Amino acid sequence: MGGHDQTLEPFLWRAENIYPDREVVARTHEGTRRTTYAEYGERTRQLANALEGAGVSEGDRVGTFCWNHTRHFETYFGVPNMGAQVHTINPLLPDKHIQYIVEDAEDRVLFVDPSLAEKLAGAYDREAFASVEQFVVMGSDAPDLPIEPLTDYGSFVGDQPPSYEWPSLSSDQPAGMCYTSGTTGKPKGVEYSQDMMWSHTMSILTPQGLGIEDSDVLMPVVPMFHVNAWGLPFAATAAGAKQVFPGPVPEPADIARLIEEEDVTISAGVPTVWLGLLEYLEDHDVDLSTLQSVVIGGAAAPKAVIEQFDDLGVEVVHAWGMTEMSPVGTVANLKYDLRDAPYETQLEKQGKQGLIVPGLEFKVVDDDGTELAWDGEEFGELLVRGPWVTTEYHERPEANETDFEGSWLRTGDIVTVDEDGYIEIVDRADDVIKSGGEWISSQELENAIMAHDDVTEAAVIGVPHERWQERPVAMIVTPEDVDREALTGELQAMLKEEYPKWWLPDGFEFIDEIPKTATGKFSKKDLREQYAGQDLLEEDAPEEAAPAEDD
Amino acid sequence: MGGHDQTLEPFLWRAENIYPDREVVARTHEGTRRTTYAEYGERTRQLANALEGAGVSEGDRVGTFCWNHTRHFETYFGVPNMGAQVHTINPLLPDKHIQYIVEDAEDRVLFVDPSLAEKLAGAYDREAFASVEQFVVMGSDAPDLPIEPLTDYGSFVGDQPPSYEWPSLSSDQPAGMCYTSGTTGKPKGVEYSQDMMWSHTMSILTPQGLGIEDSDVLMPVVPMFHVNAWGLPFAATAAGAKQVFPGPVPEPADIARLIEEEDVTISAGVPTVWLGLLEYLEDHDVDLSTLQSVVIGGAAAPKAVIEQFDDLGVEVVHAWGMTEMSPVGTVANLKYDLRDAPYETQLEKQGKQGLIVPGLEFKVVDDDGTELAWDGEEFGELLVRGPWVTTEYHERPEANETDFEGSWLRTGDIVTVDEDGYIEIVDRADDVIKSGGEWISSQELENAIMAHDDVTEAAVIGVPHERWQERPVAMIVTPEDVDREALTGELQAMLKEEYPKWWLPDGFEFIDEIPKTATGKFSKKDLREQYAGQDLLEEDAPEEAAPAEDD
Repeated sequence: MGGHDQTLEPFLWRAENIYPDREVVARTHEGTRRTTYAEYGERTRQLANALEGAGVSEGDRVGTFCWNHTRHFETYFGVPNMGAQVHTINPLLPDKHIQYIVEDAEDRVLFVDPSLAEKLAGAYDREAFASVEQFVVMGSDAPDLPIEPLTDYGSFVGDQPPSYEWPSLSSDQPAGMCYTSGTTGKPKGVEYSQDMMWSHTMSILTPQGLGIEDSDVLMPVVPMFHVNAWGLPFAATAAGAKQVFPGPVPEPADIARLIEEEDVTISAGVPTVWLGLLEYLEDHDVDLSTLQSVVIGGAAAPKAVIEQFDDLGVEVVHAWGMTEMSPVGTVANLKYDLRDAPYETQLEKQGKQGLIVPGLEFKVVDDDGTELAWDGEEFGELLVRGPWVTTEYHERPEANETDFEGSWLRTGDIVTVDEDGYIEIVDRADDVIKSGGEWISSQELENAIMAHDDVTEAAVIGVPHERWQERPVAMIVTPEDVDREALTGELQAMLKEEYPKWWLPDGFEFIDEIPKTATGKFSKKDLREQYAGQDLLEEDAPEEAAPAEDD
Repeated sequence: MGGHDQTLEPFLWRAENIYPDREVVARTHEGTRRTTYAEYGERTRQLANALEGAGVSEGDRVGTFCWNHTRHFETYFGVPNMGAQVHTINPLLPDKHIQYIVEDAEDRVLFVDPSLAEKLAGAYDREAFASVEQFVVMGSDAPDLPIEPLTDYGSFVGDQPPSYEWPSLSSDQPAGMCYTSGTTGKPKGVEYSQDMMWSHTMSILTPQGLGIEDSDVLMPVVPMFHVNAWGLPFAATAAGAKQVFPGPVPEPADIARLIEEEDVTISAGVPTVWLGLLEYLEDHDVDLSTLQSVVIGGAAAPKAVIEQFDDLGVEVVHAWGMTEMSPVGTVANLKYDLRDAPYETQLEKQGKQGLIVPGLEFKVVDDDGTELAWDGEEFGELLVRGPWVTTEYHERPEANETDFEGSWLRTGDIVTVDEDGYIEIVDRADDVIKSGGEWISSQELENAIMAHDDVTEAAVIGVPHERWQERPVAMIVTPEDVDREALTGELQAMLKEEYPKWWLPDGFEFIDEIPKTATGKFSKKDLREQYAGQDLLEEDAPEEAAPAEDD
C-alpha cells in the first residue's frame, strides 16, 4: 500500500518550479553573489554530472571542507539527489581528527574552500586521504597546494550540462554524514538516510519546529559543517524561502550588513554569534526591522541575550539537538497558555532547551532506568528516539553498545523536565557527580560559583570518594589579587543558601586555567585526568553526602 | 543507520504528556461533552484492551459508522496504535456500497452511532457482514436492532483498564483504510500505512499545509468518515491544539454556536457547509472573532464564499486532495509575492486548488504523456506521487492497472497550472471532451452556461462524432416558462464571446433534471448512458472542430 519513498529531491523540485525566481544569496570574498532557485537547480545537476564524471556513484561519499556559501549549498542537494552522501567536515577540528574522519568516511571527492585549503593541506596525510580521488577548490583557481589531484570548482562543474535525471532512490538510501565533535574520544560518524533528512526537514517546517514560510529570508550563521547548518538549508528550500549564506568567518559587521541588505527574517547560530552582534549594535546603527527571530543552539541561550533581543523586537528561539539527531530535538517555543504568563516565567521557559518536536519521543531515567517525574526537579539521563534519530554509529561497535538502549539514543545529557514539558539540560552524564546514590549537577554549581564577581572561571568535578562514591570539588580561576580564603568562605555561604548540604563542594582548588576542548568548552575530562590521584578532598567531608529523609 | 519507524503513537504521546489539560470537546445529543488529552489517552488504551478482548489483533480491521465525536476520535489513535486498521465507513452511501465495503474490508468489529444504527441495520446483510464479530453502538444503551452480537460502547470499554502497552510497530504497518466514493463504479479501498499517516500529519502541520499551532482550536465539520476528516484530528493532536467535534448532522446554528462557545480558530468542511453558515449569519448575530480560517475542500470554493468570509475577517483556505492521497495534496495559500497583489488576483489564486505541499511531486500530461507548460492555459491530466499517496488499491488489480503509472497516481483530474504554480481543476478525465485531438473542458462550458439567469442546471457531455471523435452537447434544465429557442440563441452568442468556435456545443438539449450521484454531484456518466445512441448533434456541425492554425 505504502506511499512513495521519502527523498530530498521533491523539496528541490518544488523550489525550482514554484519559486524559480526566489533568491539564494551568498557573501563571498568577491562581494555578494546572487542566484535563484532555478539557476541553483541547474547547478546541482551540473555538479551531479561532474561527480559522475569523476567516478562518484550511488553509495559513495563526497566530503566538503567549506564555509557557508552557494557552492557548498550546491553539494547539499546535488550529492544526495544522485544517491551519494554529502559529508560535511568541520575544518576547525585538530588535524588528527580530520585525518581520522576522512579515512573513516572514505570520501572519494573532497571540496575545499580557498581560505581553508592551507588548513586541509596541513592535515593532509597520504594514507588517511587514500580514498580521495579528486580535490576541488571552491574558487575559480586552484592554489598551489601539495594535495592532488587538485582542480577548481569552475573547471570541475562549469562545462557540465545542466540536465541530469535524478535516480529513483529508496527511503533508506544514505544521503548525508556528519561526525560528532569528539570532545570525549574519537569523533563518531553518523549517517543520515534520505528519510531521516526528509522527516527532519518536515519537522523543522512545522510551527512546533521553526515554522518557515516562503516569505521568510533565512540566514544560517551556524556553519554548514555543523550538522548541515542544523538542516536549515533543506527546510528553507522546501518552503521556498530566500536563503542568505554569510560566507567565510562572518564578523558581526557582516551579519548586521546582511540582515539589513537582504531583509533577513530568521537567522540561526551559537550564542557567541549573538553576543558578538549585540556588542556590535552598541556602537552601530543597524536596521533590524525585518528580523523576526534568531535561533540559538549549540549551547544554552543566556537569559541576557534573550532579553536584549526581546528589547529589539526579535524573538529568541532556543533549540537543542545533536549530531545523532539530524540535529533538532527540542525547540523552546512558548506554549499557548504561557503567552500571557509573567515575563519572568516566559524568560525561564525560553531559556530551557524546550519542547520535543512532533514525531519524536523521549524519556528521562535514573541509573536504574526508572522514568523520572516531570517536576522540574528530578534529573536523569535523556533518551530520545524518532524517525530522524540515528540508531547506530558508523563502524563503532563499542559505542553502539554503550550509546543506545534498544531503539533509544542515550543523549549523555542530564536533564529535568518541568510540568509544562520543557526539557532543561543540567549536566553531561560524564560530568554529573554521583554522591551516595544521588546525582549532583556540576553545571548548576559552576553557574552559581561563576556568578561571584571574583571568579573568572569555575569547573566542578566529581572526585572519587570511598564512602560516597564521588564528591564535588570546585576548580576555580580568579584574578591574581583576589583573597582566596575569603572567597572560599563567601562561596560556601552563598551555595549553602541555595543548595542542600550534600551538594556543597568538599574542596575549592585555585588553578591557573581550565583546560578547553577544540570547540572552546571546558574539558572536565582533561581536568579530571590532570588531577587524578591528587587529594582534593578536605578532611571534614559531610556526614551526609546524600539527601537525608527530611531533605 | 535509519531512524526509528514512523508511527502515529508519538503524536498521541506528545499531546497526553505536554498538553494533558488541553480540551477535546464534542457536541452530542446530550449536550456538550468535554474531556482532555490526558483522559482521552486513557480512553484509547481502554479501547485497545476492549478490542484485544474482542479478538482484534495486529493487522485486523475495525470499522466505524459514525459522525464526528470524541468516541469516534478514540478509535483514531486507539485502533492504529495497537497495530490494527481503523476503517471509517461513509454512512451516506447506498446500502449496496456499504455491503461491498464491509465485505471487502473484512472488518472484525464495527462501531456505529445510535442515530445511524437503523441505516446500518437496513444495509445489514448476513453474508456481506460475515466478518463482523461484534457490533458496538456508540451510546450508553444498545438499541433493539436485528444485528448481532450487539453491545454498547459503555459496556464494551467502560471497565477496561486504562493502561496498555502499545506494541512497537513498523512504518509499513497498515493503520487506516478508506474507500473512494465510487461515483464511477464500485468503491475502491485505500489502505494507509503508519508512515503514510505520519507523513501526511507532518505535511498538514507545516505552514505550507495548514500551519496548526497549540493555540489553535480546530473544528472539523468535514465528517470523520471522509478520509479521516482530512487527517485534521491527527495533526491537531500532534500540535496539541484543542479539538471540537460538531457531532451528528451539524446545522448552521450548531456550527455558529460551537465557534462562539469554544473559540474555534480553524474549521474545515465542504462548500455547502459554509454557504449554509453564511446564510445563517444574515439573520443571526454570531461572534466569529476567534475564527481565523475556514478550510474548504471536497469541491471548488466559490469566489463569493471567499469574498464573504474575507469581509468577516476570516481567511478561506482552499485545499484539494483525494482518498488516495490521505487526502491533502494542494493548499491555496497565497505566495509571498502575491500578498501585495490586487485583490482580484488574490481571489483568483485562492479560488484555485492551490500549491502542492512540500514532499509531494506532480506532473500534468496530455494523452501522449507529454508534460504540459505551466501557463494557466494548457490542460491535461494531473499525476501525483509522494509518501502519503497510495501506490495501489486493495484487491483491485484492474484499477491498479489503469489508475497508476509507475510510482504516479493518475488523479483523473484535468488541470491547468499557472506561472505561479497554482493548480486548477478544469474537468474530470472522464468528462473532458476530446474533439479533433484537442480537449474541451466540459466544466468550463457548464459554468458559463449556468451563469445565465434562465438556466437552473447544465451539464455538457461529449457525444461520439465520426470526424471529430467527440463533440460537446449541452443538457439544460430551465424553469417551465422559459423560451428555449431564445435562450439557445443567447447562450450561443454568450459562449461565442468567450470561447473559440470549436468549443461551442453542437447541440442544446432541454431536459427535466440532471441525474445525480450518491454525493449529489452531476452524474455525467449516467447522462451519457441515458442519451447514448440518440442523435444529439445539430446538422450544421462546424467545419473546424479543433483549433485551426490561427486559433
